[in-house]
Order: sequence, then C-alpha cells, then structure tokens
Amino acid sequence: MKICQVERPLVATNRIALMEHKHLQVVIDGSAKLVAVDAVGAKPGDWVICVGSSAAREAAGSKGYPSDLTIVGIIDHWPPEGAGDDTTAPTEDSAGDTAAGDAASGPGDQTGGAG
Amino acid sequence: MKICQVERPLVATNRIALMEHKHLQVVIDGSAKLVAVDAVGAKPGDWVICVGSSAAREAAGSKGYPSDLTIVGIIDHWPPEGAGDDTTAPTEDSAGDTAAGDAASGPGDQTGGAG
Amino acid sequence: MKICQVERPLVATNRIALMEHKHLQVVIDGSAKLVAVDAVGAKPGDWVICVGSSAAREAAGSKGYPSDLTIVGIIDHWPPEGAGDDTTAPTEDSAGDTAAGDAASGPGDQTGGAG
Amino acid sequence: MKICQVERPLVATNRIALMEHKHLQVVIDGSAKLVAVDAVGAKPGDWVICVGSSAAREAAGSKGYPSDLTIVGIIDHWPPEGAGDDTTAPTEDSAGDTAAGDAASGPGDQTGGAG
Amino acid sequence: MKICQVERPLVATNRIALMEHKHLQVVIDGSAKLVAVDAVGAKPGDWVICVGSSAAREAAGSKGYPSDLTIVGIIDHWPPEGAGDDTTAPTEDSAGDTAAGDAASGPGDQTGGAG
Repeated sequence: MKICQVERPLVATNRIALMEHKHLQVVIDGSAKLVAVDAVGAKPGDWVICVGSSAAREAAGSKGYPSDLTIVGIIDHWPPEGAGDDTTAPTEDSAGDTAAGDAASGPGDQTGGAG
Repeated sequence: MKICQVERPLVATNRIALMEHKHLQVVIDGSAKLVAVDAVGAKPGDWVICVGSSAAREAAGSKGYPSDLTIVGIIDHWPPEGAGDDTTAPTEDSAGDTAAGDAASGPGDQTGGAG
Repeated sequence: MKICQVERPLVATNRIALMEHKHLQVVIDGSAKLVAVDAVGAKPGDWVICVGSSAAREAAGSKGYPSDLTIVGIIDHWPPEGAGDDTTAPTEDSAGDTAAGDAASGPGDQTGGAG
Repeated sequence: MKICQVERPLVATNRIALMEHKHLQVVIDGSAKLVAVDAVGAKPGDWVICVGSSAAREAAGSKGYPSDLTIVGIIDHWPPEGAGDDTTAPTEDSAGDTAAGDAASGPGDQTGGAG
Repeated sequence: MKICQVERPLVATNRIALMEHKHLQVVIDGSAKLVAVDAVGAKPGDWVICVGSSAAREAAGSKGYPSDLTIVGIIDHWPPEGAGDDTTAPTEDSAGDTAAGDAASGPGDQTGGAG
C-alpha cells in the first residue's frame, strides 16, 4: 500500500454508472497526483493508506467496483515523531509551496536529482 | 486512478477481435503517452480519470474486455482554480508546446531533473 | 495500454509448457525493453498497442495463458502526421541510432534528464 | 517480489473493517516508503520479501483481504557477504542517515542521478 | 514480461507456508533487484523472461501460489549478436562491476542521467 496525503475532493459529474456516488479524493503520492476512492472519510491534509491493484475493488465496497486505488485507513501519526524524516524538510523543489506541496516530496518520490 | 489529459483518438485497424469497435484515446499521463479505452465519450483536451489494473476490464463494459486503462470520468475543473498548481506553469520543457504539450508536465511526472 | 515499437522476435527454447509456441516480441517502451506475446502478427518497426495487467492473459488467447503484456493491435499511423511530436526528434541520446533506437525516446520515457 | 527493509510498525486506528487487526509495517523499497501487511512477524531492520499484485491478497491470509503488498519471508542474509554490493555503500544522499536510511538507496532505486 | 538477468539464489528460511520450497532467484531488472520464483531452473548469469501481475501465480505452478514475478523462460541469445545494443557497453555507473553489475544498466533502466 502507498502512503499518500489527501489534497482535495475531486468532482467528475460525467462518469460511468459503476462508480456510483462514492467520494473521490486527489491524493499526493510522492510527486504524482492520483485519484482514490475514499472508503474512510478522509479530510484534506490527512495522511492515508491507499491500496491498489485488484484489492482496491473489494476495498471500495464490492468486487465489481471500478477502482484501482482506494483509501483504506488514516494514519495516526505521520511523519512519525523524532524520525528525522525528510518528508517534512522543505527542499529546493518544494520550498514556498503549500503544505500539500511540501508533502509531494515525501515517500514514493521517483523524480531524478539535479546537479 | 490517474489524472490524464486526452490528446487525440487512436486508430488501429488491425486489432484482436476482443477489442470490438470501442474508441481508443491517446492520453497523457505526466510525460508518458498511454492508450485508454473511452467509456465516457471524452474529447481532446479533456482532463479525465483513468482506471487501470483489473478494474479497467469491467469499466470498459465487460469482464472479458482486454483493457488495462479505461476512461471512467471527465473531471469538472482541472487544474482547480486558485490552486497555484504547477500543472499550468510553462516549464523549460513545455514552453512553446500546445496545450496538450503543457499538460505533459502535469501530475504523474516521473522524469528526472537536470544539472 | 502502452504504445510500443516492435524491435525483434525473441527466442526462448527453454520455457514453461504453459507458454506453448506463441510468438514473443521484444518491444520498446520508452527507454525500456519488454517482452510481449504477439496476438496480431506484428513486424519489427511496427508501432503497436500492448495491454498489460490481468487483461494480457485473455488477450493472449486463454484465461490461463501466462502473459502480462500482449500486443493487441497495430497502430495505423504513428507518430501522427503534423503532430510536432517530439517522438520523432533525434535527441542527444538517440542521435545516430537506428529507427528503433530513436523510437526509444518516444512515449513512456521515464528517464531523467542531463546537465 | 521486492526486496524491502522494515522500518517501523504503522498504526491506523481508523481503517476499513476488512483489514481486521493484522499488523502493518512501513517498508523501504529503494527510495520509496510503502506499507505492507506482515504475514511473518518481521522486526524493524529486517530485510524481507514483499509480494504485490493480486498475490498479496491470498498471502495476507484470505482471498478477500485488501492488501497489495504482503511480507511473505525474511531474507537470511542481505546484502550477501562479499557481494561488493552497492547497497551497503553510503552515498551522497544517505550519508549520515540511520541504517534504515542507508537501506533506502538499495535495490529498487529508481531515482535519477546528479551532475 | 521483463528481460532480467539472474544474479544469485535467495534463501528465506522464515517464510509463509504457501510459498512451499520453490527456488527463489534474485534477478536484475535494469537498476533494480527483484525476487522471482524460478519455474525453469535458471543459473546465475542467465538472461530470463519474467512474468508479473496475476499471470505470475499460475506460471509458478498453481493459481493460489503467492508470486508476482516468475521466471518462465531462458533467452537463447541476449543481447542479440550485432545489435549494437547499449546493454553491453560499460557505463560510468557499472565500469569495474561484475558481469551481473554491468547487466544492471541493461533493459528496463529507469535511472536518471547526469550532468
């Protein structure tokens, strides 16, 4: 599962019927923005556990639900206290961004370095 | 799910029978171009939600449909107003490109930096 | 689905029985070389649509076929005419390569830049 | 399967019922932090084998379990003795980090280089 | 499927019962090290075809086997003769490494460039 931070809800009025009216959230996974079905009622800023692959379907409520990323839990404390984790340190790329922007340089970052 | 922008329809006359005559779209996911089955009738320039993994099959209409990426919704507003999102800022790579080109530096970008 | 270019057939005499005698092709996906089961009879140089995930199995002919990447269609025109697409522009990395080499810097490229 | 190093347990009080009370671990995969369901009782610092995709569900105990990453084994010796493996060499990025931090530059690293 | 090179066998005494006693191999996929279930009896140095996704389970011997990467074939000739393939060229990163180390800069490399 991925550790993501919720950015904001996503509205897509025109969507297939199988998606029903479940809430969608834009989540930040490293430097990428993804869309996840929200199964726990997360709020913007929350650090959440997102499950992907075929497990995302059942986690979203039924085996036939068309999800490949579902929020299945809200992490109690992230980043952990005293971890000296670089997820909280502003970097060259994120300095001056919003809190959500800073989060973008957290876990799962696959972006190349610079000289 | 991924946030992609539709670039153009894709024509592949020689294809397996299982694909039927469903419409295929070239979509831009960060800096990569992918092909998605269109289940909502999207137009070039639309920002869409694409579902992958095994969920893409049922979303395309039937459990046996050979899709690993299906457009399941059109996003109402993207990028969000007042987001200060870097998806709208022209960069070194995209300046002078078309709108679709600019979009290529949006969410999901996994390309390395430069010295 | 991915947009790949066929490079050459791949021979693996020692393989599991489940793979039968279906043709395998080396395909180029951005800067990576992958192996795909060929369900359409593609030739080296062809631009093709490759389906992955669990959909690759049924696309290869049967639900039990051990494929995670199957060529399901040949694209009529790629890159599109007048697209101003950077997939045709020789780059620092590919200049002097063969046509297939140039293609390697096309869609799906996740390689970092250079200073 | 991926070779990951266990960093610490993860607590998520608010989670979907399907996840039951199984233990979750933060694991380091190259430079990314992921969450895995622990099926073997691993400790922080252990190098483990993590299985993903749909196989992660059954490995977590039942076909309906919503996991896309499950720890299925603890590696006896990693990195292997006398391997001259760069997974043990401190790099520009990890020097000064904890043991777990050093591990982050190990296998599965997809981060770009620097000038 | 991926083109990988076998590096060495992997021993994990403490593993879930579902994995039985099948052989595991460390394989190199570009710059990443992965673990694959060996269904063909490969040796260190062999270039092999690895299947992932849900197809890896059945390829490993049974539908319930917890594998997401299975070696399904040994490639007859790789890299191909006269290919002018850069998979054989030593690079800044791999010069001085073992044969297996050189292989790490072969197909599937997603590592960023340098200035």
